[in-house]
Amino acid sequence: MKKHRVGILGATGTVGQRFVQLLENHPQFEITALAASDRSIEKPYSQACTWKLAGAMPEYVKDIIVQPIEPPLDCDFVFSSLPSGVARETEEAFARAGFPVISNSSAFRMEEDVPLLIAEINHEHLGLIENQKQRRGFGKGFIVTNPNCAVVSFAPPLAALERKFGVKSVFITTMQAISGAGYPGVSSFDITDNVLPYIAGEEPKVETEAQKILGKFADGAIEKADFTVSAQCFRVNVIDGHLASVRVKLKQTTTMEDVRREMENFPSLKLHSSPASFITVCDEPSRPQPRLDRDNGDGMTITVGRLFPDNIFDYRFVALSHNTVRGAAGSAVLNAELLIDKGFV
Amino acid sequence: MKKHRVGILGATGTVGQRFVQLLENHPQFEITALAASDRSIEKPYSQACTWKLAGAMPEYVKDIIVQPIEPPLDCDFVFSSLPSGVARETEEAFARAGFPVISNSSAFRMEEDVPLLIAEINHEHLGLIENQKQRRGFGKGFIVTNPNCAVVSFAPPLAALERKFGVKSVFITTMQAISGAGYPGVSSFDITDNVLPYIAGEEPKVETEAQKILGKFADGAIEKADFTVSAQCFRVNVIDGHLASVRVKLKQTTTMEDVRREMENFPSLKLHSSPASFITVCDEPSRPQPRLDRDNGDGMTITVGRLFPDNIFDYRFVALSHNTVRGAAGSAVLNAELLIDKGFV
Amino acid sequence: MKKHRVGILGATGTVGQRFVQLLENHPQFEITALAASDRSIEKPYSQACTWKLAGAMPEYVKDIIVQPIEPPLDCDFVFSSLPSGVARETEEAFARAGFPVISNSSAFRMEEDVPLLIAEINHEHLGLIENQKQRRGFGKGFIVTNPNCAVVSFAPPLAALERKFGVKSVFITTMQAISGAGYPGVSSFDITDNVLPYIAGEEPKVETEAQKILGKFADGAIEKADFTVSAQCFRVNVIDGHLASVRVKLKQTTTMEDVRREMENFPSLKLHSSPASFITVCDEPSRPQPRLDRDNGDGMTITVGRLFPDNIFDYRFVALSHNTVRGAAGSAVLNAELLIDKGFV
Amino acid sequence: MKKHRVGILGATGTVGQRFVQLLENHPQFEITALAASDRSIEKPYSQACTWKLAGAMPEYVKDIIVQPIEPPLDCDFVFSSLPSGVARETEEAFARAGFPVISNSSAFRMEEDVPLLIAEINHEHLGLIENQKQRRGFGKGFIVTNPNCAVVSFAPPLAALERKFGVKSVFITTMQAISGAGYPGVSSFDITDNVLPYIAGEEPKVETEAQKILGKFADGAIEKADFTVSAQCFRVNVIDGHLASVRVKLKQTTTMEDVRREMENFPSLKLHSSPASFITVCDEPSRPQPRLDRDNGDGMTITVGRLFPDNIFDYRFVALSHNTVRGAAGSAVLNAELLIDKGFV
Repeated sequence: MKKHRVGILGATGTVGQRFVQLLENHPQFEITALAASDRSIEKPYSQACTWKLAGAMPEYVKDIIVQPIEPPLDCDFVFSSLPSGVARETEEAFARAGFPVISNSSAFRMEEDVPLLIAEINHEHLGLIENQKQRRGFGKGFIVTNPNCAVVSFAPPLAALERKFGVKSVFITTMQAISGAGYPGVSSFDITDNVLPYIAGEEPKVETEAQKILGKFADGAIEKADFTVSAQCFRVNVIDGHLASVRVKLKQTTTMEDVRREMENFPSLKLHSSPASFITVCDEPSRPQPRLDRDNGDGMTITVGRLFPDNIFDYRFVALSHNTVRGAAGSAVLNAELLIDKGFV
Repeated sequence: MKKHRVGILGATGTVGQRFVQLLENHPQFEITALAASDRSIEKPYSQACTWKLAGAMPEYVKDIIVQPIEPPLDCDFVFSSLPSGVARETEEAFARAGFPVISNSSAFRMEEDVPLLIAEINHEHLGLIENQKQRRGFGKGFIVTNPNCAVVSFAPPLAALERKFGVKSVFITTMQAISGAGYPGVSSFDITDNVLPYIAGEEPKVETEAQKILGKFADGAIEKADFTVSAQCFRVNVIDGHLASVRVKLKQTTTMEDVRREMENFPSLKLHSSPASFITVCDEPSRPQPRLDRDNGDGMTITVGRLFPDNIFDYRFVALSHNTVRGAAGSAVLNAELLIDKGFV
Repeated sequence: MKKHRVGILGATGTVGQRFVQLLENHPQFEITALAASDRSIEKPYSQACTWKLAGAMPEYVKDIIVQPIEPPLDCDFVFSSLPSGVARETEEAFARAGFPVISNSSAFRMEEDVPLLIAEINHEHLGLIENQKQRRGFGKGFIVTNPNCAVVSFAPPLAALERKFGVKSVFITTMQAISGAGYPGVSSFDITDNVLPYIAGEEPKVETEAQKILGKFADGAIEKADFTVSAQCFRVNVIDGHLASVRVKLKQTTTMEDVRREMENFPSLKLHSSPASFITVCDEPSRPQPRLDRDNGDGMTITVGRLFPDNIFDYRFVALSHNTVRGAAGSAVLNAELLIDKGFV
Repeated sequence: MKKHRVGILGATGTVGQRFVQLLENHPQFEITALAASDRSIEKPYSQACTWKLAGAMPEYVKDIIVQPIEPPLDCDFVFSSLPSGVARETEEAFARAGFPVISNSSAFRMEEDVPLLIAEINHEHLGLIENQKQRRGFGKGFIVTNPNCAVVSFAPPLAALERKFGVKSVFITTMQAISGAGYPGVSSFDITDNVLPYIAGEEPKVETEAQKILGKFADGAIEKADFTVSAQCFRVNVIDGHLASVRVKLKQTTTMEDVRREMENFPSLKLHSSPASFITVCDEPSRPQPRLDRDNGDGMTITVGRLFPDNIFDYRFVALSHNTVRGAAGSAVLNAELLIDKGFV
């Protein structure tokens, strides 16, 4: 089988490195273009990039010459992990030049004609692509996005509840890993023996993205879910793995057994990067823990625990996802697999 | 002025060591008795205790011979930092033997005739002491307690709101320091690069103590406040300083300026261990932080930040207190100063 | 092919858990017996053991009933990760009962008739087994050991130098991971924002084991290497991976290129658990790092870096090994594979 | 008494903030000028500087308007914590403009006419100032420096040995705190669950500065001490406090008791910032520890422990100093006090 040829925009950053790691030996994709900022271009990736993930840089990318972040690139579509400032203009340019753009950036997430995808939850939102192409005058190109890394930890269990019981209100308190800030990101002087009660720009994203993700696609548009999210976001001294403390008020009363069953039974997909279990609910009183559970399902499983009735709202629980796999590069790769499966690429 | 002679029950533990540290050069108190468990007794404190706080063990306690935790001890009253299992029987025995017991333990906190004190908030609860003595047949002895260390972080700002606007419901998510678990306490293998979503026995305490603390003393009894608290408690990799993420629904609507003013204007006391400011509200977007703010007011100030309107409840904020000073030994010392000031000792 | 049936002594500890993890799907071994201390026996492993490694406990061991640590067990040989106090008597009892004992404990390491193995370095020391059996009156049973986890980080590069140039003196300063202390092991209150300059009993091991490992087997005995090791051992806040800072004085002068070549060319074995590269020498100025390099070769590669001429001795370098894989359970599994390969089991 | 009016060059950095903290309520100094880089100038210090030390920014500096780092400033002398690149030109310009420059920068440390001071050890090196003024054509201005922060941890105990027994060779392995890298300095993604085996430019400083510090001032010049230092420098996950693992070979044999006595008896000074004890030798097997001992003597005491005979060299020990107090701002303040005491300012 011929592999799809992919380019990575922002290839030297931490999410870019995750793409490189996840695409090694991928059965459907091969990297044919790596693009990064000015100081990297015309260098082989091995020189342009200081590898920050465990183990050595994969051999297969070392000699690829880094190119400027401009279309065209020699590939069939691009993954983007550009900073949101740069992303808006650049991703649009790639789409306009005919490239499907599968983006981890926040720039287009809330645009009404751009899918904000969690593949297991809302693949019908891909229906927006046609509108997007027409509205923006794109040809073959288009943009799809994946959510903010903190949203990915709690949106899946919420989706399980929303579709069955309806969600009314949600309090979220996040404890987010340092890798979410990129590299160099959080100064060790700030986070050692400490917790930071503020992540710039994060709370508004956490309060708005889930309603779009869990929205209904009808008549060519998304009707957002009507629940309210209140978010307080904290940075903790953890390498990978965003934890969310959740209280949820439902529209319809139900039992804890039913809540649990809806979460556990939320179907996974049959795509290459799909985990065996999309949502795992654990019983041990002291789980999920970032260090022990972030790699569940190779970083693609959402792990839920401490599910109990709440004394103000209906239920409380804790949800964990790997923020640079399921919360970033892994979700984008899964989205690419979904796009192929559905015939969009 | 002659100093009050004090004993410490559980003198070798981490809270016991804080008592020793805080009482060095205290103008009103001198330590005359140190009591600890079997393996420590008959040894000088310098040999019985591995000092775990910064700096060297204070000279003045090194030669005090550690005694068994049994009355009588050669002192006017005792501070207790006993584990709750042991505390119930032992603290009662000391009270019965005529010793005022100023306890940091959870054993008697929720007993209806035992004051659960935050000196600035509810000193009128000392009125329970008379009932307690009669009901339990104590002579000169009695028991007063201070709250759970996590409760101390959010009860003060809540008190400011309760007395002015009335509190209806409160969501609390705590991020608690490792020193709260004592020594050796939390294994480094559990908390490095990690967050623990469970602290045994903690959530019920956080959900119930504040209502008693903010209760009204009338007719010789406490009428508990009628708000509901929902708590999720987490352990984070921080040495000292418990952080609470708070959303609060009030009975009466008000402006954020008023909320802030009520907190900042909550009066401090004029006792030796009272901080200049009981509650400080900070404006910097990334404060309070445990490492930077736990020592505010020598560890006795509650620092509040990130005060904003909430989109589900009325207001949200973050509150921090030093868990082994204001949340444990420091509160007990302040309670002792209060008892003297009010003539109970 | 029929698998060898193995038992694990000390199955619930952190090294015991590593054995369980490493033996899942092992082509030559299957676990048929798990033995642990009193409070675990007669329980299924899933209940007896709180799993502390990443991910969930492997399914295949969950229902195995934990047995007392006494011979006989239903297996062909045993891996032991017993504390050294218990190990002396128990390991001897198993050997006497006919079981080969492949031990990670320190109890027998320095006994003159017991091999102290690093499979790539000194497999000829297996010649001691015959003497051991005769001297101790063992039948089919015997004891082999692997070195202290800190020694494993620097003994391999030293072996490369010893065999070619001769080693005269070695200064070692270790920075050791918390997992080396077992569970609960190091208190988080001790190691957060800290370094501990003392590990009980460690420096004497580091100063003596390498000479035996690099000794010559002749006339049925080990003639220890004659170099001197000076060790200062520190505990640092790292989950896994022991780092050693090394200065070495050689008997014979040589170039840095030769030093490097001897290390890199030190042959690996063809056994199942052998890494592709036994010793990897890296060029990046800031490597090896515990978090990035401990899993090289699935935790079985020794990673060396910062190799430079020294201004007092001949060369200096930094060496890293994964302390619970190559430094403990992984070495023992490799030793078992070696014993099979050489016909001892 | 009229206070000396001081300026701080690099006032917004972490060392600059330490100066501000240490000079609050200093009996001899008052800050009259704060200078920092372009983006800070013309702003009040409270706006120009994000305060990173514990507690709030001291009130007394909040309204001082930050000025460009150019002479003249309205003060009697300046403290400099400029990056070494900028320092060379700027510090010389200030000296030339008539300002004594008391520098924490590395730029002039090894210049033969510039004192490299540890006040307790080599105040006679102040004799260089006269030569410096003449040689460089300075008027009233001059430059004195304090050593690299890692050197300060081991140079004092070495000085005790050098002056009595002579030092021949020294192996140093450092474990250095993150605050040594300034702010933002070390990325948390690099140091969490990790050790870094490389600090750019550090090993050459550690290998050369001590010989100048311990040199003899004679005939208007420094004759450097003739011992050799071999250094390997590591970054560990500690906020403050540099630890050095030391082995030393002496010229003259001596007992461990004498070694210890020489260290403990090394005299402190009678200056305001002098600690009661310059070098403290502790007996506890697990001390010194950065978190527990860095604040000894308000961060100005050197704490030595684990003093033992070495099996290759003569003695081994561990030494700790607070890297941003004794190793930076505190040393500079002490140098200023020394300069006043000796009549140079």
